[in-house]
Amino acid sequence: MLRRIGLRRVSVTAVARSSFRDCIRTLPTSHSIPYLRSTYSRLGKPVSGLNASKLSISLTSTRKPLPKLEDLTFGTTFTDHMLVARWDEGAGWSDPKIIAFEPLEISPAALVFHVGLECFEGMKAYRTSSGKILLFRPDQNMARLRKSVDRLAMPAFDDTQLLECIKKLVKVDERWVPERKGYSLYLRPTLIATTPSLSVDPPSSALLFCILSPVGPYYPTGFSAVRVRATFEYTRAFPGGTGENKVGINYAPGMMPQVRAEGEGFQQCLWVWGEERVVTEVGASNFFIFWTNESGEKELVTPSLDDGLILPGVTRASVLHLAQSWNEFKVTERRVCMPELVKAVEEGRVMECFSTGTAAVITPIKAIGYESRELAIPLDPSDPTQGAGPLARRLFDEVVGIQYGEVGGPEGWVVEV
Amino acid sequence: MLRRIGLRRVSVTAVARSSFRDCIRTLPTSHSIPYLRSTYSRLGKPVSGLNASKLSISLTSTRKPLPKLEDLTFGTTFTDHMLVARWDEGAGWSDPKIIAFEPLEISPAALVFHVGLECFEGMKAYRTSSGKILLFRPDQNMARLRKSVDRLAMPAFDDTQLLECIKKLVKVDERWVPERKGYSLYLRPTLIATTPSLSVDPPSSALLFCILSPVGPYYPTGFSAVRVRATFEYTRAFPGGTGENKVGINYAPGMMPQVRAEGEGFQQCLWVWGEERVVTEVGASNFFIFWTNESGEKELVTPSLDDGLILPGVTRASVLHLAQSWNEFKVTERRVCMPELVKAVEEGRVMECFSTGTAAVITPIKAIGYESRELAIPLDPSDPTQGAGPLARRLFDEVVGIQYGEVGGPEGWVVEV
Repeated sequence: MLRRIGLRRVSVTAVARSSFRDCIRTLPTSHSIPYLRSTYSRLGKPVSGLNASKLSISLTSTRKPLPKLEDLTFGTTFTDHMLVARWDEGAGWSDPKIIAFEPLEISPAALVFHVGLECFEGMKAYRTSSGKILLFRPDQNMARLRKSVDRLAMPAFDDTQLLECIKKLVKVDERWVPERKGYSLYLRPTLIATTPSLSVDPPSSALLFCILSPVGPYYPTGFSAVRVRATFEYTRAFPGGTGENKVGINYAPGMMPQVRAEGEGFQQCLWVWGEERVVTEVGASNFFIFWTNESGEKELVTPSLDDGLILPGVTRASVLHLAQSWNEFKVTERRVCMPELVKAVEEGRVMECFSTGTAAVITPIKAIGYESRELAIPLDPSDPTQGAGPLARRLFDEVVGIQYGEVGGPEGWVVEV
Repeated sequence: MLRRIGLRRVSVTAVARSSFRDCIRTLPTSHSIPYLRSTYSRLGKPVSGLNASKLSISLTSTRKPLPKLEDLTFGTTFTDHMLVARWDEGAGWSDPKIIAFEPLEISPAALVFHVGLECFEGMKAYRTSSGKILLFRPDQNMARLRKSVDRLAMPAFDDTQLLECIKKLVKVDERWVPERKGYSLYLRPTLIATTPSLSVDPPSSALLFCILSPVGPYYPTGFSAVRVRATFEYTRAFPGGTGENKVGINYAPGMMPQVRAEGEGFQQCLWVWGEERVVTEVGASNFFIFWTNESGEKELVTPSLDDGLILPGVTRASVLHLAQSWNEFKVTERRVCMPELVKAVEEGRVMECFSTGTAAVITPIKAIGYESRELAIPLDPSDPTQGAGPLARRLFDEVVGIQYGEVGGPEGWVVEV
């Protein structure tokens, strides 16, 4: 790997060897060198950017039958087509193509199989009662993907161009956008490093693709509150890492802890970080507490983005925005630690806990396993047969109403395909 | 994803809802549930284990010409064949096969592209002057792969069976094992999750493969000492994470920091962890300091495995064993922090620094960039034209001598193919 580095280094300053005693000197360069990828290759040649106007479409000759909506299992049924574009260090981005959904042919030496260089987004297309197809805040997903790409030193692209390509893909497969409310088409834009090299180096080639999967409501028979296990023996994310980016490497560390939590009858891990037992995420979703805080105020609180430990979720941001706009209780982003949460549960101040994410929108939490105890979290005190508390239900209805175009949301939140 | 979990949960205890005040109870189960994968599937059916005696071999009809050894670039040339075996949750392991080296056909929805479920090993086959082919401590690589697999909740296998399959692959492609000393055949056993599902769940199918790549000596014209950048702004590994496992997800977080370090003229990052600035690894290699410690003793020191932050390298373990067997200086595994290293450099007590790994064996370090300074690390004081210090050179010669069967090593270190 060292021999390859010589080819791509921007500049190597020869350092005069100092004497044995006079061995500490001041570094001449700053610690911030831009990484040129978007318009110029690292070899100095101009390269092509991703260009939606050059998109070509090759329709499949064998369209699949649409699935029965009731039979859908999340993320396992795929539509007829996919979007692909290749990047090469020397040439830049290829013209994007819509082609039949098919297996990828990739060298077993491809970087993505060996060093985890992959990032993605999760978003949905919704069909309104009048038949229009809407995306929910897709600019947020595109901006986040761009940040993930930068964090992994993967190839940059113009995210508005990618969104145009994705819209065209949804148009091509629009018969797959379910007509029933609660159902939707899940979109998975993904970027993987394809360089066939076993060196631990940034990629010199990559593949961008987007696949589509029709999905049902997470809780077809109404909310189904989950039990979560506060997990501190294993770590999901950490300062200086990639917790705030949507990258594949955030998820693999949680698989074994999740299996262990499932073995104890919990559905998800509640990720707790460090000696202070900072509460971060639930599974792959953002975490919210609705409580009466120690000052006696009603407050909706969620971990802040400051530590870089959690994903800046689009549903998270939307829930915060809506709750703030109601102006009925305090809405706070800050650090919450397990001892504070335990105390609030013990004192009966916790009214609801839930998680937010694209797939389920809102997942109510009914219990938190912590050390050798279990904390019971209220759902709806006025109707214990309900699977969610009143705030979770209200937020769900509001967000979903906006997503399906039934309720007016803030400017720009829904975008027609 | 929640709906899928129901299928695979071992048992879900219904928890009686407690009242609002009486909301904390004792959990009935321990926090350690074994994850059944090797002999029984999670559905309770017996499944097949990986079985080397069932290996089939399909030779390619188009053998590639052997490369010129001088032209080899690490990890970019591959042999004629590869080993493959598939795992399915219901059936277990397929019969392993040796087939032509070819692209993999994998669904774009495969888990490996989305949640980073992949692990691997790096090992080498060496040709002795008498033409025999040797592996160096392959049992260590197999045991480490088994641990990586467990950490990611991927399918288990009998590692002695895998080693038998790998030996047969090397036999099939033995013309690719270079005849010149310093050259070798690099082996890359890899396991990836192939389940075509966008759920964040452990895999229900996986692909094990091994590819082979002839490689040259890292420093064809003698040692080439590197400058490393002490990197604390970004984190590579952390307690409760996967630093001690050889998993792809350990490498992606380091790409962007490495590019930045290269932009400043450094070849690698020296990964420094946490507020105490604990020194951990160099790039993807283990780190060693040879110094006179504060008690005035000569000491070879390397970060201990206790924090789970660093890879238990096979070359690392071998270097520790050999240095201890000489009984000439103290050999220590313990925590070292940057302030301690800086002080030792300032006081002229550091004699050498180097890193160890399978690819380069020993990489001497001549400078460490830290904050705004640069610490000069001695190489060979008696001959400044040499690219390595005397200890680095001696350890290199000893390890390589054992690997090529020229020097007798401890029992079991070399294994004939």
